[in-house]
Amino acid sequence: MSRTIYVNGSYQPYDQATLHVEDRATLFSDSVYEVVEIKNGNLIDQQDHLDRLARSLNEISLTPDFSLNTIPFIIRESVRRNRVRNGMVYIQVSRGVAKRDFIFPNPDMTPATLIIFARSSNFIAKEVQASKGIKVITMPDIRWKRPDIKTTGLLASVLARQTAKGQGAAEAWLYDENGFITEGAASNAWIINEQDELITHPATTAILKGITREGVMRAAKQLQLTYIERPFTIEEAKQAKEAFITAATNLVMPVTHIDGDPLNNGQSGAVSLRLRHIFHEFAQLTK
Amino acid sequence: MSRTIYVNGSYQPYDQATLHVEDRATLFSDSVYEVVEIKNGNLIDQQDHLDRLARSLNEISLTPDFSLNTIPFIIRESVRRNRVRNGMVYIQVSRGVAKRDFIFPNPDMTPATLIIFARSSNFIAKEVQASKGIKVITMPDIRWKRPDIKTTGLLASVLARQTAKGQGAAEAWLYDENGFITEGAASNAWIINEQDELITHPATTAILKGITREGVMRAAKQLQLTYIERPFTIEEAKQAKEAFITAATNLVMPVTHIDGDPLNNGQSGAVSLRLRHIFHEFAQLTK
Repeated sequence: MSRTIYVNGSYQPYDQATLHVEDRATLFSDSVYEVVEIKNGNLIDQQDHLDRLARSLNEISLTPDFSLNTIPFIIRESVRRNRVRNGMVYIQVSRGVAKRDFIFPNPDMTPATLIIFARSSNFIAKEVQASKGIKVITMPDIRWKRPDIKTTGLLASVLARQTAKGQGAAEAWLYDENGFITEGAASNAWIINEQDELITHPATTAILKGITREGVMRAAKQLQLTYIERPFTIEEAKQAKEAFITAATNLVMPVTHIDGDPLNNGQSGAVSLRLRHIFHEFAQLTK
Repeated sequence: MSRTIYVNGSYQPYDQATLHVEDRATLFSDSVYEVVEIKNGNLIDQQDHLDRLARSLNEISLTPDFSLNTIPFIIRESVRRNRVRNGMVYIQVSRGVAKRDFIFPNPDMTPATLIIFARSSNFIAKEVQASKGIKVITMPDIRWKRPDIKTTGLLASVLARQTAKGQGAAEAWLYDENGFITEGAASNAWIINEQDELITHPATTAILKGITREGVMRAAKQLQLTYIERPFTIEEAKQAKEAFITAATNLVMPVTHIDGDPLNNGQSGAVSLRLRHIFHEFAQLTK
């Protein structure tokens, strides 16, 4: 649990970290966010996350009244105050507090809301999970048509993850009207074919362009593995040699079953695990 | 502005009405809501709104730890404390406060969050607007595939309304991949043909089944007007005799222009205005 949460200029004790009821995040999901991994006290690919945050803000026409350049300092202080060595930091920007109206409030009178919290996670548990791998199920992708923008409008993903859990799986892979897997509810989806080629959906507006996804591409190059950005079907995925998901909080997480059908005899794949273990060598670390 | 806002069991002064940062409404839009009109001190179709709230909660598998039967009492008290004679009351239920995780928190340890606020609106201004009518533009419907659930994941609608405003319009009509109008960003869409038949999209999962939409159907029957639930295209809408939108805060609001093309010579239509003015005769009033 976080000890303190940064809210709009001050570090609040956890229980007192509040927002006004009429914050536009709460009433309209008029807000965007990022999650950055913390590994051995280092922020992983922080700049890439902040660049994507800037892009998300731009896509929803939100120009905060503060400079995004202040965020790394608040992140650093949040990590320090919460004594996080391995875990994550969460950053959210909303269009501020205003009388409820779909129309944007006057930006000159409505400061954006900035929330930042850092939290430890169980690094060992994640490693154990990776060695066993996870199961995924497949479901129709019912999200809005701009999941490339990282907004807090996440209910479709919440319901998909919960459905997965109900079926003993850790993630739901979402498929479009043509039967192609777009991505997971909160991760990018990858398969590896018999030629050890990595395949993942192109970074169109249909998926979030994952920072960890980009990192895996760098790692793959170094391992002289080919990666191909193209859509793949559920059937192709079930025939794959290996599969995995990527996300800042999961890194490279091997997939052992899709809709109950085993891949790689139901074991975490060797290529997937190798990518996981070299991932941080190709990441940008910020002290 | 509201004077007090009800939050989880108490009436808070407006400035102190807050929620924890980790409320699931704020982080995941894991929440549903209703807006009920207040006219001459009466709540309009309150029970229908509460029934729809119960349906939305059921669709997202949220079972609050409180009875929905308590809500009318809180609504009544909110109206009284805020001295609202004409205006609206807003009701929101979220899946509560929990450490951020897509998976539902343990419901036994996570009380749902209930927010209720009542607010006056300018009744005369709305009547003046109705007599002049409003302009609408058309845009692709990029929302998630379950707008029949009234969730706070409203960013697509926020952006659509803002785009409309930028083009001098008050609402955006959204069209699906086949060119059919589904509904407005925050209202149902109607057209009237030369035979004085009312046409609106069927209440599938592609639209919110509006309470005001239902009320207009009751009013239409009384006026011996035929209404037809079927999809219509942008082109058909532009050829219509009249058009209007329905929403709890707008009632029946005539549309005079679609993408800049005038209907009914750019005037509010007579049938639309008649429906507006008799609407409350067929509504259920709660003191």
